[in-house]
Amino acid sequence: MGKRIVIALGGNALGRNLPEQMAAVKNTAKAIVDLIEEGNTVAVVHGNGPQVGMINTAMTTLSREDPTHPMAPMSVCTAMSQGYIGYDLQNALREELLDRGLRRGVATILTQVEVDADDPAFQNPSKPIGAFMTEAEAEEMRRRGNAVMEDAGRGWRRCVASPLPKSIVELDTIRTLLDAGQVVIACGGGGIPVYPSGGNHLKGAGAVIDKDFAAALLAQSLSADALIILTAVEKVAVNFGKSDQRWLDHMTPAEARAFAAEGQFAPGSMLPKVLSAVKFAESRPGRTALITLLEKARAGIAGQTGTSVSA
Amino acid sequence: MGKRIVIALGGNALGRNLPEQMAAVKNTAKAIVDLIEEGNTVAVVHGNGPQVGMINTAMTTLSREDPTHPMAPMSVCTAMSQGYIGYDLQNALREELLDRGLRRGVATILTQVEVDADDPAFQNPSKPIGAFMTEAEAEEMRRRGNAVMEDAGRGWRRCVASPLPKSIVELDTIRTLLDAGQVVIACGGGGIPVYPSGGNHLKGAGAVIDKDFAAALLAQSLSADALIILTAVEKVAVNFGKSDQRWLDHMTPAEARAFAAEGQFAPGSMLPKVLSAVKFAESRPGRTALITLLEKARAGIAGQTGTSVSA
Repeated sequence: MGKRIVIALGGNALGRNLPEQMAAVKNTAKAIVDLIEEGNTVAVVHGNGPQVGMINTAMTTLSREDPTHPMAPMSVCTAMSQGYIGYDLQNALREELLDRGLRRGVATILTQVEVDADDPAFQNPSKPIGAFMTEAEAEEMRRRGNAVMEDAGRGWRRCVASPLPKSIVELDTIRTLLDAGQVVIACGGGGIPVYPSGGNHLKGAGAVIDKDFAAALLAQSLSADALIILTAVEKVAVNFGKSDQRWLDHMTPAEARAFAAEGQFAPGSMLPKVLSAVKFAESRPGRTALITLLEKARAGIAGQTGTSVSA
Repeated sequence: MGKRIVIALGGNALGRNLPEQMAAVKNTAKAIVDLIEEGNTVAVVHGNGPQVGMINTAMTTLSREDPTHPMAPMSVCTAMSQGYIGYDLQNALREELLDRGLRRGVATILTQVEVDADDPAFQNPSKPIGAFMTEAEAEEMRRRGNAVMEDAGRGWRRCVASPLPKSIVELDTIRTLLDAGQVVIACGGGGIPVYPSGGNHLKGAGAVIDKDFAAALLAQSLSADALIILTAVEKVAVNFGKSDQRWLDHMTPAEARAFAAEGQFAPGSMLPKVLSAVKFAESRPGRTALITLLEKARAGIAGQTGTSVSA
């Protein structure tokens, strides 16, 4: 009996530009179809850091050269990135499925995700996006009302808020397609961030939602059996890079929270993955989250590798 | 008993840039929800001329400034435009539905449409896209392998092929959602043009598919009851702008073809709309296509206005 699985894809699943993405999605599709071939129903959530940065830079350059085009808000850039990434990914999945004799619809659902307009993240834009700038360019960007930050000695970048996802606007659509046995790509880039703004209106937010948190929320909302966070390491480690480094096969949510409180996991990298896994595992007894290498998805779901988080 | 209707939206439904689009979709949503409120199930196809042009220009500018980003193919630009337009349109539809107390899922389906790699259109790129250029800029564009043309005295533009749509890759997804009563935005910009390229691979084509032809194919493929082509005029005219101008209430496919052969309809404007209407009306007895003003959709489907095409 197959499981309903939500897969969160890390940055290594997509590459950083057009030719890299076209190559990377082939490999990614193999890992995902491995799970479908075993009878599971799969929804895929992907990140969009480099892609939304590229699109944001392109649209900003356009608006500088042609003032009839105002700056594109981050919500619009995320919508474009869902189209850009979804196209390559759904195409690669379709091909890999057909190559294995599997006939399944593959769909990319343009997804809006509601955030709280009062989320404290809006007071503290922390997620770097787009190209590196000189300090002078950053100052100009700041003058135009954008937050900027120095990014780990590599230069200045624009940064945006990263609020928590509250609900998935297109959930019914995603569920309908999964129920029909289709493969669904949804909540791309964490979803287009929107917040209620008078009556039934949803307004785009100048933000980017963490895709692992969005994947955990999607898994919860769909009552999925498992959340698999695919990344560039096979297992989660504590004391990472030290002499007493230890790979973990399993954590309870309480153990994971304790490690997180010790600062064991890098913010913006392993920390949101572990916290997303905890969130899903805690949401109902019997739910399991797994963090493992993209290429180990099949072995991971069979219990042979990766780090699982469950109560 | 409600009908299954495919709606093709003309350029006036979306505007030409970000703020225009945000305003235009409100009006467009009202016209579409008028039809849903009467119990019809609706799939919406929209154009993307100005939008894909804007995105193509932005991506071209980026690749000029940062050579790590190669030029984005037209297929990728169309995928981005489906995200950009679908986001605003689905949001406006959702709000208008809720404002009228209607609970329906609204989904944008990233759609690939197969074309024939041997379509003669590829030998004769005829569809102008993107910003106007000087003759010198056009020459430079041509040197980089793109087709360019002088556009009606307004300057030079890049132009791409406009092949005929053959089949809709994500048809099952669209049908599943319509069967579930959802409102579906699909084949945006005529669909992402792809063609079979060895095994099960689909390759993006440097082309833009006419959205009216794509809408006719979608209507046919879904066995829709009606195709409604919404545009900037209430009815189709013959002898347009002359002393003997005549508005048409109805044409048979044969009459429409005869008018088209006389050169009554402007290529790139009314001609593809009339030919798409003919194509759908001819595809099975009882099928009706309607061409009318965006704001007259409801009256049109009630038989009170517009130009209908049926056998």
